[in-house]
Amino acid sequence: MADDRAAIGIFDSGVGGLTVFRQVAARLPGESIVYLGDTARVPYGTKSADTVVRYARACARILLKRNVKLLVVACNTASAFAVDVLRDELDVPVVDVVGPGARAAVARSRSGRIGVIGTAGTVASRAYDESIAALQPGATVTAQACPLFVPLAEEGWLEGTVPEAVAHHYLDSMRGTVDTLVLGCTHYPLLAAAIGAVMGPEVALVDSAEETARVTAETLAAIGAANAEAPPCYRFLVSDAPDAFVRVGQRFLGRPLAGVEWVDF
Amino acid sequence: MADDRAAIGIFDSGVGGLTVFRQVAARLPGESIVYLGDTARVPYGTKSADTVVRYARACARILLKRNVKLLVVACNTASAFAVDVLRDELDVPVVDVVGPGARAAVARSRSGRIGVIGTAGTVASRAYDESIAALQPGATVTAQACPLFVPLAEEGWLEGTVPEAVAHHYLDSMRGTVDTLVLGCTHYPLLAAAIGAVMGPEVALVDSAEETARVTAETLAAIGAANAEAPPCYRFLVSDAPDAFVRVGQRFLGRPLAGVEWVDF
Repeated sequence: MADDRAAIGIFDSGVGGLTVFRQVAARLPGESIVYLGDTARVPYGTKSADTVVRYARACARILLKRNVKLLVVACNTASAFAVDVLRDELDVPVVDVVGPGARAAVARSRSGRIGVIGTAGTVASRAYDESIAALQPGATVTAQACPLFVPLAEEGWLEGTVPEAVAHHYLDSMRGTVDTLVLGCTHYPLLAAAIGAVMGPEVALVDSAEETARVTAETLAAIGAANAEAPPCYRFLVSDAPDAFVRVGQRFLGRPLAGVEWVDF
Repeated sequence: MADDRAAIGIFDSGVGGLTVFRQVAARLPGESIVYLGDTARVPYGTKSADTVVRYARACARILLKRNVKLLVVACNTASAFAVDVLRDELDVPVVDVVGPGARAAVARSRSGRIGVIGTAGTVASRAYDESIAALQPGATVTAQACPLFVPLAEEGWLEGTVPEAVAHHYLDSMRGTVDTLVLGCTHYPLLAAAIGAVMGPEVALVDSAEETARVTAETLAAIGAANAEAPPCYRFLVSDAPDAFVRVGQRFLGRPLAGVEWVDF
């Protein structure tokens, strides 16, 4: 039986998963969390399935050494390529972001015409297409890789001519064809204004972070490992030097970041 | 004494160093070359000095196992952070791209007012500032990090509204203040049209690849390890799956790429 005082482990290729951290911390204020950003190997979205699986295994190993009771894969590319492998191999429950994102999109869409944007890896994996089809067989999924969105978000280039021109380039062909758009990369919520301006106000933008936090809470309850006792302890681990993570991470987390620890793996 | 039939080793974080490969192969048509692109860890330009040094050591180790007679660090960030360490630790000559780029810029500039653009890491290292100051103490160096240029080049987004707007953002403040601009990242020559359009035709754009090839030839001659006997053998190694490297690499190399081999490290 899981130790209810153990922390939740969350990992991402870098800072993007802090949007998931934020929702999990808000929904489960008594839970301690260890967050790992694999900043020495970021990004995952342009890399192959084999490499992403290798990195996801390494991240899981680091977090399991910290005795986490549940693992959240807070990276869409790692969820798309590695979640089945991790569920097979690990003894703790593994929550991904693709399944929750797909469920949120299906719940929101009235027409069943759903758009998905993500990294090249996530789109190539067809993980969202399959998750959405399993939930609503008649749904139509239009997917578009948006590789420039990650560096724009990492650089904090969130509004103005460049993000708008990039958003038009990727999304113009999708506009008017979907009623719901899944932000299938944890970096994309930062660009929601530019994305929403292209898609129009009638298109619902779905960020999987909130739904992922709900699934995390339900899973902990189901295995009898929930911990409602505050105060929680938050720890942040990174594989590259902490300073850039701290600087950029604050934008994602929406509050100051401190005590970030470097881990070698 | 070095084996003159051994290959030259060239490494970069990814495909960018193929612009250096191209110049070395053109100048030294009898030399075999092993090129290593560390595509599983790309980019280096946003990562810390410690991490870049670690990766550069690992790349050098892989190439030395292939018995190379000289090592070219065809990545500006790795040159800026790791070339001294590699020269201390390795038994083969190490040619970098920063020194040759600085020399080419000093030779070209009439006013001594030189601009340098590069990754965040290269600019933070001040390696170009120091190399240029050592060559021409009165020179003024203006440096600007251009982090979006790497993903633009990697995505093949080389002309049009977005690259032009990004180039204006980074370079407008430098226009009119320098007569020479060092393209201090092996990705940037692909964006030379957009960069030149902002800087104006009177500013000379310096690409270190040609000068690096000259230094490589001189170094081989100096150690008595030159090999003028064709035909050369070219091998390409990558740490991520080869397909993306092949696709993007052809743009950098200017000809088809074949026989790319995956190496695990």
